[in-house]
Amino acid sequence: MDTATRTRIYDSFAAQSMMVTLGATLADVSNGTVRIEAPILPGSRQQQGFGHAGLTFSIGDSAAGYAALTSLPLDMEVVTAEIKINLIAPARGEKLVAIGKLVKPGKRLCVVTSEVFAVENGLEKLIAILQGTMVPVPL
Amino acid sequence: MDTATRTRIYDSFAAQSMMVTLGATLADVSNGTVRIEAPILPGSRQQQGFGHAGLTFSIGDSAAGYAALTSLPLDMEVVTAEIKINLIAPARGEKLVAIGKLVKPGKRLCVVTSEVFAVENGLEKLIAILQGTMVPVPL
Amino acid sequence: MDTATRTRIYDSFAAQSMMVTLGATLADVSNGTVRIEAPILPGSRQQQGFGHAGLTFSIGDSAAGYAALTSLPLDMEVVTAEIKINLIAPARGEKLVAIGKLVKPGKRLCVVTSEVFAVENGLEKLIAILQGTMVPVPL
Amino acid sequence: MDTATRTRIYDSFAAQSMMVTLGATLADVSNGTVRIEAPILPGSRQQQGFGHAGLTFSIGDSAAGYAALTSLPLDMEVVTAEIKINLIAPARGEKLVAIGKLVKPGKRLCVVTSEVFAVENGLEKLIAILQGTMVPVPL
Repeated sequence: MDTATRTRIYDSFAAQSMMVTLGATLADVSNGTVRIEAPILPGSRQQQGFGHAGLTFSIGDSAAGYAALTSLPLDMEVVTAEIKINLIAPARGEKLVAIGKLVKPGKRLCVVTSEVFAVENGLEKLIAILQGTMVPVPL
Repeated sequence: MDTATRTRIYDSFAAQSMMVTLGATLADVSNGTVRIEAPILPGSRQQQGFGHAGLTFSIGDSAAGYAALTSLPLDMEVVTAEIKINLIAPARGEKLVAIGKLVKPGKRLCVVTSEVFAVENGLEKLIAILQGTMVPVPL
Repeated sequence: MDTATRTRIYDSFAAQSMMVTLGATLADVSNGTVRIEAPILPGSRQQQGFGHAGLTFSIGDSAAGYAALTSLPLDMEVVTAEIKINLIAPARGEKLVAIGKLVKPGKRLCVVTSEVFAVENGLEKLIAILQGTMVPVPL
Repeated sequence: MDTATRTRIYDSFAAQSMMVTLGATLADVSNGTVRIEAPILPGSRQQQGFGHAGLTFSIGDSAAGYAALTSLPLDMEVVTAEIKINLIAPARGEKLVAIGKLVKPGKRLCVVTSEVFAVENGLEKLIAILQGTMVPVPL
């Protein structure tokens, strides 16, 4: 992908203070696929001590949104219209990894999915899947 | 509702470090309905400066989960099996308010909804609706 | 609501051969709310003899779509972008009733919900809730 | 997969009168994956003449449910707890093909997905994706 698109996505990610709060990083950006990683910080837990669904959701949603953005002109942003998450296993381990994919690009609507994995002792385990709709909007 | 149930829910909420990180508070608990409030902290923003979808999701999901928990015995917890969010308007203003409701109680599955409002200059505006499934699990 | 909008919705409904196949009728149309009824025909069952999820979905989705259409100019149609259904109880009884509601109108996207009830011995019981997004498109 | 499991799934499918009404057939059953096909019958259309979302949903949901059932003991059935569909393109062509997959087996909940394709002039095009939860219940 071209440098301008990549730079734009890294800039947008850096502007999301929530990603900083969660310790999330943009690990990879390619056409239609984006990878975001985040540790399970002491401040990102639910009542049993596992990673909070809000953490899993936040990086899964962001990875899906940026996967859509890789297909759009430089003067566009995306916002999430809707997204659904199925939580499959507890968020347990060293870190979470979200892989967002663009299923169907579009000028009005982009259909996206994400998979979120927990990495524990170096082993990846699928903990959540997401399916949603992103809306391109002018920057 | 009885004091033990109410205490249990406040204790569970307090054990969620993510709620502390987001500045969220449990504002009201009654049978089948729970209200959670959160400011839009500097560290809870998306790239345009509005509240992050992850913030809206986190309090909407938690309010729905605790709404389910009000119907369960004291030795049970709930976890989110799945939940879907439709984002309707930007999260703009002083704070967000999530109202979770239990639509259908159950021993195996509880069906729940949430509405999330943004409060700006004292006016509440609906910004998101959620619909999901909570699973009772032993404490 | 004006006669032209009402007529247009009845005409659109009549053009859906699936509604004829399912025996569904448009029972009420008002601003932002539409009611569709359908018997549980011998040909609309799942393997246990209850109404099929596809029947519940079809009338819930249509009621939600037409609820959105009540807010749109006469030269527009709507199509479903996405919709989610939570099935709460078996579809058992004489007939099903779907009530679709427009939660948030919009030129680009309309957010909608539906409730579907089964009527057994004259008593209504909630069997499903839906939450989705309709997209206005030119007729 | 063993013959008893395969026979049980074909028997369950045959007992769904809705599948007969829609002309749907069980085209393939293997461990964790099920393929259902259906023509776009004159009686399965929406108002623009394309296949109805209820048709796409019905076969997508059934394929996902039977994908889950391939993992369960012979004395169990599944019912849909919830499922979400994103409609990507009109259902246009000779027939629809739904491929259901089991993402996460479980005794209490199975997480599933489906893809639905329209076949037009022999070419398959993705028209919908589904993501949902199936619940095992005693037969």
